[in-house]
Amino acid sequence: MPELRQNIITRDWVIIATERAKRPHEFAASTKNAIAIPCYRENCPFCVGNEDSTDEEVLRLSDESGWTVRVVKNKYPALSSLGDRVRKIQGIYRSISGVGIHEVAIEHRRHDAIIALLSVADVANILQVYRQRYREIRKDPRIESIIIFKNHGQEAGTSLEHPHSQITATPVVPSQVRIRVEEAIRFFDDTGDCIYCRTLVEELEADERIIFQSEYFVAFIPYAALSPFHIWIFPRRHTSSFDDITDAEIFDLADTLKNVLAKLYYGLNNPDYNYSIRSIPTSTFQTAYFHWYIAIIPRLSKAAGFELGSGMYINTALPEDSAKYLREMQVSAINE
Amino acid sequence: MPELRQNIITRDWVIIATERAKRPHEFAASTKNAIAIPCYRENCPFCVGNEDSTDEEVLRLSDESGWTVRVVKNKYPALSSLGDRVRKIQGIYRSISGVGIHEVAIEHRRHDAIIALLSVADVANILQVYRQRYREIRKDPRIESIIIFKNHGQEAGTSLEHPHSQITATPVVPSQVRIRVEEAIRFFDDTGDCIYCRTLVEELEADERIIFQSEYFVAFIPYAALSPFHIWIFPRRHTSSFDDITDAEIFDLADTLKNVLAKLYYGLNNPDYNYSIRSIPTSTFQTAYFHWYIAIIPRLSKAAGFELGSGMYINTALPEDSAKYLREMQVSAINE
Repeated sequence: MPELRQNIITRDWVIIATERAKRPHEFAASTKNAIAIPCYRENCPFCVGNEDSTDEEVLRLSDESGWTVRVVKNKYPALSSLGDRVRKIQGIYRSISGVGIHEVAIEHRRHDAIIALLSVADVANILQVYRQRYREIRKDPRIESIIIFKNHGQEAGTSLEHPHSQITATPVVPSQVRIRVEEAIRFFDDTGDCIYCRTLVEELEADERIIFQSEYFVAFIPYAALSPFHIWIFPRRHTSSFDDITDAEIFDLADTLKNVLAKLYYGLNNPDYNYSIRSIPTSTFQTAYFHWYIAIIPRLSKAAGFELGSGMYINTALPEDSAKYLREMQVSAINE
Repeated sequence: MPELRQNIITRDWVIIATERAKRPHEFAASTKNAIAIPCYRENCPFCVGNEDSTDEEVLRLSDESGWTVRVVKNKYPALSSLGDRVRKIQGIYRSISGVGIHEVAIEHRRHDAIIALLSVADVANILQVYRQRYREIRKDPRIESIIIFKNHGQEAGTSLEHPHSQITATPVVPSQVRIRVEEAIRFFDDTGDCIYCRTLVEELEADERIIFQSEYFVAFIPYAALSPFHIWIFPRRHTSSFDDITDAEIFDLADTLKNVLAKLYYGLNNPDYNYSIRSIPTSTFQTAYFHWYIAIIPRLSKAAGFELGSGMYINTALPEDSAKYLREMQVSAINE
């Protein structure tokens, strides 16, 4: 019989469809093959030599060979960096002017530098840039929430092949962020604990869904994963805001992120995925109840009418099986 | 400047990305062409003559030429119709046995009978079957919520071409349904009104986003539509549960649904879409605060990292423009 599981952090229900379940390697077969990507494309706006084709540069990291990470303004921003935050309420209609931040972080000068195959130092550069921009953007009084995310591959919504992530900031607290904060407060009221710390303790104790552990981070598949191979990376140290991350933690997270993405790369044949950093709204910094984390969502299934109509998901992968598969996937062959 | 709008029914925020906005007809160009579909396929399990290849038949409507609509059990059900609803709580882990209903409604004996091109009487047959199954399923004490939906086309998540919808019922109230009910109660507390009735009054008064009106129904694009050409069909009469629909309303809804889907078919070149009937949980029937409705979601854009990371959406179509385009789209040429 299938089983419904509830995500205690969001109250979402998921159907773990054991009768329809596929074996972990079957998800790999359904994804695209790893196609050789050139290290440079003449017409790529993010490649070396084409720096003029991007919009204004906001930040640049460099080493002896040139730039390593660049942050530029998005050429087609979803939110405008100029203007005031103006709220309008007319009857049932509520709006706010679309002010905010929309930047692109070009993750490496090489066109083929995907995180799964980068050196830990290079991944650490990307994370350091995220932190620096986060710290800067949070000073803007018009901003309520900063969302840093990555779209890898066409199914994940990107049209540009050159590895990049996006740094966005909104003048409202998005509903998903608000729901997580409200549930965390409720759990804290009931128990005096952080729901994320408690989850970490119980997941480590259960030891069934862990994929990778490092000194400061734990990567695992949530008990009520909404879709196949959905992964969470939690910091072991309780802290609410991503920009509180230390230098040592950045280097350690780089190692964790690289390892987890390499396991997906080799285990599932370079699937398309999104990741996003879930952090507390910027009006707050440190709380006892909220805990930042990273969610990685491989795009191996499609939401259809049932998901859109109910908000419930059907997951055809058993989280314990998926976690075992990735945990045992050896990626040490990767050249660093 | 872009504009953020809030959906008062769900509290979701959407970015109406006016700087990136496309003209309505540009969405059409990006969808597949209308491909001629045969009226019969020998190897289609839903075609006439292959009735044995489906699972157990639950309901059949017939006319002088044979069956018109068949409801069968899903061959690969996400939920099991047998067994008890058993709830388990162990620490932070919560689960319920996966009991529920998962049926398929084969909408017509013809393989090419898509709703946009059917007669109103044929569409009314489908809706009548929905109502009959809804009334029957709600008697099952294990059921909390009934979700009837349709996936049209591959982008909408279907692999079978023969027109069909799905009738599902879950042993929990899905979070999206719960959020809508809670928001409706809050609005009723604050104002004494049904939030859906109020929306209908204000949308008719504003007269900017209406697509189609009939005696008993109004179709419009919500002010804060999360994605391009997202459409709501509201009954004018306040009632909380879909199965309260009368015979006269069924015939009128068939006309409305057919017209709206025909406008999408001709205006946007037969786009893939999902629709779903949003009705109150089955433990309740009539309330002053909740109002059932249909949501139609053409699959013209892809959720990416921003949407997954924030729950906010970026809509590149201005609701007022999309509504005008569909409102003015003539579909009277359709042969009934």
